[in-house]
Amino acid sequence: MTDPVSQAGPHRIPPQSGTAFRLRRGEVLVVTDPRGEQVADLMAYADGDSGEWLSSGRTFDYNETIYLTSGHVLYSNRSRPMLTLLRDDVGRHDFLLTPCSTETFELLYPPGTAEGHPSCFGNLVQALAPYGIRPDQIPTTLNIFMNVLVGEDGRVKIGPPISQAGQSLELRAEMDLVVGLTACSAEGSNNGTFKPIDYQITAVQSG
Amino acid sequence: MTDPVSQAGPHRIPPQSGTAFRLRRGEVLVVTDPRGEQVADLMAYADGDSGEWLSSGRTFDYNETIYLTSGHVLYSNRSRPMLTLLRDDVGRHDFLLTPCSTETFELLYPPGTAEGHPSCFGNLVQALAPYGIRPDQIPTTLNIFMNVLVGEDGRVKIGPPISQAGQSLELRAEMDLVVGLTACSAEGSNNGTFKPIDYQITAVQSG
Repeated sequence: MTDPVSQAGPHRIPPQSGTAFRLRRGEVLVVTDPRGEQVADLMAYADGDSGEWLSSGRTFDYNETIYLTSGHVLYSNRSRPMLTLLRDDVGRHDFLLTPCSTETFELLYPPGTAEGHPSCFGNLVQALAPYGIRPDQIPTTLNIFMNVLVGEDGRVKIGPPISQAGQSLELRAEMDLVVGLTACSAEGSNNGTFKPIDYQITAVQSG
Repeated sequence: MTDPVSQAGPHRIPPQSGTAFRLRRGEVLVVTDPRGEQVADLMAYADGDSGEWLSSGRTFDYNETIYLTSGHVLYSNRSRPMLTLLRDDVGRHDFLLTPCSTETFELLYPPGTAEGHPSCFGNLVQALAPYGIRPDQIPTTLNIFMNVLVGEDGRVKIGPPISQAGQSLELRAEMDLVVGLTACSAEGSNNGTFKPIDYQITAVQSG
């Protein structure tokens, strides 16, 4: 092992908020749902070049599936590996839908929901701004623990996450990254309650 | 009717190539598969502000389906309506996968396929460059007539397009747009042959 990473954590993201941090190539990010049934939206960019970003479309294409789990590689818009999914306690995550935003609450929730409502999009905008990433550069996120079911007719239904307290997803960085991560703010994605998300960065393992 | 649009067409996109053009708010773009079983990848940007682009994730989210057809609205990354699908002769299009690229042929096709192979990504890069749009700004495209089936287990399978000769999809612009459009270059998406795509722009109808 190399020296432990100074910002290794564990860290806690409070309910309905977000954060951003650097993840070095070879480091492993462990995202944990400490209480169960809580989604965490993740976005990633090449460190130092925010024109290279995590691409749902390239990832679906090269893995030939919309459901990503252990062993799958997440690709950038330039078709380069960004992250590899390692241990996955849960086995159900979403990469179809965009982070919840003011417009999500306006269009899909009862009238009056949107005003003053925190959102993953807003939280990512704020967390990623210090890294020079603009709101327009936030596309479809990897929605960890989000339970999106696609019917045979294509209909998309959001169910309660199947993650239980203490379950995790581990992701290894395949390049130096800037990562945005939230504890999701949308009632409909988290079975009606808002809980924290924990994360930890483990040091690069030497050969 | 207002005056006919000068570039109304009909236009033909030769096999394995692409083009780009402006589409004014209210104009209708008619995309036709003249010979059948041919895919056309479409991308759209707000005219004059390429930071606003067609978003598969926002579109899936707000329509609550991955299969788009007549009556569905396609949204931008800023959650604004960009295009509305009008008449749809075919009823099966894809918005999951990215345009085929050199890397698509490297990763998913037999060795040797990629070298010198035309691609929708390459064709869109070339066609959109005069409008100031950079390669990194080309995300998941609306793949018109592409037949992508998602199994219950999430597996993605590409079947032959179900479009027959002469069938069309009509899209109405909800804002002024720059549109990129291809006749797709990938063997696997077009039942092994490469055919042209036709398009026409109909004038804005006055009240």
